Amino acid sequence: MKVTVSRKAHFNAAHRLHNPAWDAQTNENTFGKCNNPEYHGHNYELIVSVKGDIDPQTGYVLDMKWLKDLIKERVEERFDHKNLNTQTEEFKNLNPTAENIAVVIHQLLKPALRPEHELKITLYETPRNFVECAD
Amino acid sequence: MKVTVSRKAHFNAAHRLHNPAWDAQTNENTFGKCNNPEYHGHNYELIVSVKGDIDPQTGYVLDMKWLKDLIKERVEERFDHKNLNTQTEEFKNLNPTAENIAVVIHQLLKPALRPEHELKITLYETPRNFVECAD
Amino acid sequence: MKVTVSRKAHFNAAHRLHNPAWDAQTNENTFGKCNNPEYHGHNYELIVSVKGDIDPQTGYVLDMKWLKDLIKERVEERFDHKNLNTQTEEFKNLNPTAENIAVVIHQLLKPALRPEHELKITLYETPRNFVECAD
Amino acid sequence: MKVTVSRKAHFNAAHRLHNPAWDAQTNENTFGKCNNPEYHGHNYELIVSVKGDIDPQTGYVLDMKWLKDLIKERVEERFDHKNLNTQTEEFKNLNPTAENIAVVIHQLLKPALRPEHELKITLYETPRNFVECAD
Amino acid sequence: MKVTVSRKAHFNAAHRLHNPAWDAQTNENTFGKCNNPEYHGHNYELIVSVKGDIDPQTGYVLDMKWLKDLIKERVEERFDHKNLNTQTEEFKNLNPTAENIAVVIHQLLKPALRPEHELKITLYETPRNFVECAD
Amino acid sequence: MKVTVSRKAHFNAAHRLHNPAWDAQTNENTFGKCNNPEYHGHNYELIVSVKGDIDPQTGYVLDMKWLKDLIKERVEERFDHKNLNTQTEEFKNLNPTAENIAVVIHQLLKPALRPEHELKITLYETPRNFVECAD
Repeated sequence: MKVTVSRKAHFNAAHRLHNPAWDAQTNENTFGKCNNPEYHGHNYELIVSVKGDIDPQTGYVLDMKWLKDLIKERVEERFDHKNLNTQTEEFKNLNPTAENIAVVIHQLLKPALRPEHELKITLYETPRNFVECAD
Repeated sequence: MKVTVSRKAHFNAAHRLHNPAWDAQTNENTFGKCNNPEYHGHNYELIVSVKGDIDPQTGYVLDMKWLKDLIKERVEERFDHKNLNTQTEEFKNLNPTAENIAVVIHQLLKPALRPEHELKITLYETPRNFVECAD
Repeated sequence: MKVTVSRKAHFNAAHRLHNPAWDAQTNENTFGKCNNPEYHGHNYELIVSVKGDIDPQTGYVLDMKWLKDLIKERVEERFDHKNLNTQTEEFKNLNPTAENIAVVIHQLLKPALRPEHELKITLYETPRNFVECAD
Repeated sequence: MKVTVSRKAHFNAAHRLHNPAWDAQTNENTFGKCNNPEYHGHNYELIVSVKGDIDPQTGYVLDMKWLKDLIKERVEERFDHKNLNTQTEEFKNLNPTAENIAVVIHQLLKPALRPEHELKITLYETPRNFVECAD
Repeated sequence: MKVTVSRKAHFNAAHRLHNPAWDAQTNENTFGKCNNPEYHGHNYELIVSVKGDIDPQTGYVLDMKWLKDLIKERVEERFDHKNLNTQTEEFKNLNPTAENIAVVIHQLLKPALRPEHELKITLYETPRNFVECAD
Repeated sequence: MKVTVSRKAHFNAAHRLHNPAWDAQTNENTFGKCNNPEYHGHNYELIVSVKGDIDPQTGYVLDMKWLKDLIKERVEERFDHKNLNTQTEEFKNLNPTAENIAVVIHQLLKPALRPEHELKITLYETPRNFVECAD
C-alpha cells in the first residue's frame, strides 16, 4: 500500500501580476488589483506531499526532518520575504501567479526526490484561494 | 502539467432530511435528529476546484475572480439563507443530504466551464463532516 | 494566579430574526435575508470559559469532563438540530440573534458553577461573525 | 450585560519595515528580512470587535452588515492590494509594523462608532504572529 | 457519479519511534527526539473517507452516524489515551510512525465496509505533518 | 494606547495526571483515562502574549524574533518530545495539568520580560480544551 506523507511550510512574499507583452490597459483588465505596479503580498502556505512505499526498517516513506530541511533550503530561503518579480531568477520572465509558483516549486523539489516517489504541491495564496499540481 | 485551482465560498441554509415515500417511524429511524420537521441548519463551506492547463498568456488556469462570481451567481444566491426543502427547486423532490447538495452544485457549475476543465466539489456540512464529488 | 479553562462545543440549529412588534417591511429592512420566514441555519461553535483558582489537589480549575457534560446537558441537548424560534422555550419571545443566544447560554450555565468562578461565553454564528459575553 | 460582537475581514498588502532616521546597517540589524527594500507582503486577517449593550428592539449590539461595510470602506478599500509604504497616506511617515497598522485601523474605525461602544482590533500578520489594541 | 464522504475524529496517545533490530546510536540518528525512551505524544486528528454511490432512498453514501460509531469502536477506544508501544497489540512489533498508524487504521476499518466502498485514511500527527493511504 | 503582541509556538509531550498522595482508585475516579500509568500525549499549541507600549523608534512592542527565540530556549527545548512527569524538573512534584503547565510557562518566561510588560499565556492541550493565565 502506497502512503502519502505531507509537510506544511510557509513564506511571505511580494508580487504583482503582469504580462510585459501587453499594454497597461489589457494588464489592468486581466489582473485587476493584482496588477498594482507597487506590488502587494501574501502569506503563502505550502503543503509538499510525497507518495511512496513505507520503508520496513524505519516505518517512514521518507524522513520528514529531511523533507522539512529540503523545503527550507530550496523554497523558503529562495522566496521568503522576497519580491518575486524583482528578486528571484524564477519569476524574472514568468508571471508569479499561484499556478506558476506551484509549478516552479514542483520543479525545484522534484530532482531531490527518489525517482519512485511521486510529488504533489499544494499552495494557498490566501485562505480562500489555493492551487495544486502533481506529477 | 495540469494544475488544479480552488476557491472557497460559503452559504447558510436550513434543511431537514426526509423521504416522503417512507412512514414517519422509518424516517426517524434513518435520519434521527436530521428528520426534525421544524428544520435545523448549517454553515456550508464550499470548495470549488477546477483542473486544467495554465494559459501561458495569463499564468492562470482560469480567472479566480470569474470563478468567485460564478459561485456567487449560481450557488450562493440560490441557497444562501434559504430553506433548501421549501425554497429551492433543486430539493423540492430530492433529499438535501450533503451528498446530494454536492452533486447538485456540480451540475449547476459544470455547464459554465470549458469542456476540457475538470470539476471537483468539496462541501463541509459541519467542521467534522464533508463530502466530495468530481467528474 | 487565576486561570481560565475553556471547552469548545457545537450545535446546529435553524432560526430566523424577526421582531413581532414590527411590520414586515421594517423587519426586512432591519434583518435582511436573516428575516426569511422559512428559516435558515448555522453550525454554532461555542466556547465556554471558566476562570478560577487551581485546586492544589487536582491541578484543575474544574474537571473539563464535568464541564463537557454540563454543556451537553444544558446547551447541546436543548438547541442541537432544533428550530430555535419554534422549538425552544428560550426564544419563543426573544429574537435568536447571536447576542441573545450567548446571553441565554450564560444564564443556563451560570447557576451550575461555583459562585467564585467567572463565566465567559463565546459563540461563533459563522466563521466570520462571533459574539462574547461575560459576568 | 455587555456583549462584544466581532467581525473578521482581510486584506493583502506589501510592506517593508524601515526607520529613515537610521543608517542601512541599523535598519538591517533591527528589522532583518523585513527590511528588504523591494518589499514583501502578507495576508492580513483582521478582527474588529465592538462591545456594548444589546438593543432590545433588534437583539443586536449593532448591525453586523453595517460593520462589514464600514470595514470594507475604511480599511479594505484603503489597504487591500496596496503597497503600504508608498501607496497609503497613513504609512508614508509611520513604520507599517503590525502594531502600528492595528493602531491606525483603530483610529480609522473609532470615529464611526457610537461613543458608548468600545472598540478592539486584532490583526494577524501571519498565522503565528498577531497583535491587539483596544480603547 | 461517485461521492466521497468524510468524517473527522481524534485521539491522544503516547509513542516512541524505535527499531529493536538496531543499536541505540542508529535509532537516535534515525529517529532523533522521537526515539526518546520515555515517550512523547500527539493529538492525532483522523479523517476517514469512504467513496461510493449515493443510495437513492436515503441520499447517503452511508450513514455518518454509523461511521462515527465505527471509528469510535475500532480506533478511538483502542488508541485514545494509550501508550501505542506498550498498550496496543498493533504496535507491539510495529514502529508507530504516522505512516504505520494510518495503514493499521485502514486495516481495522476496511473489513467493516461494504466491498464496493473505497476507503481513504488521512492522519495528522501534528498540524504540520500528515499522511494518507487508500485502497 | 497599549498594544498586545502574540506569538504562537508548539511542542509535543507525554504526560499522565496523578496525585501521589491519593490511592489508585481515587486517582482513577478523578483523572479517568488521563491517569493511564503508561502515559498519553498531546500536541500543545502555545500562544505567548505581551502587552506594552509601542517603541516609536521601531514600531514594535518588542522584537517578535526575540520572543520566538525566548520561547524556543525556555519552553520548547525544555518540554518538546519529553515525558513531562519523568523528564522535567518542573513536573516532578507538580501534576502536569494544562492549568499547571500554563502557570509554569508563565513563570519561565516572566523574568525575561521588561517589568512594564504584561504577560499572558494561552495553552491548547487539544483543539477543544485550552487554558489561559496572565499577570
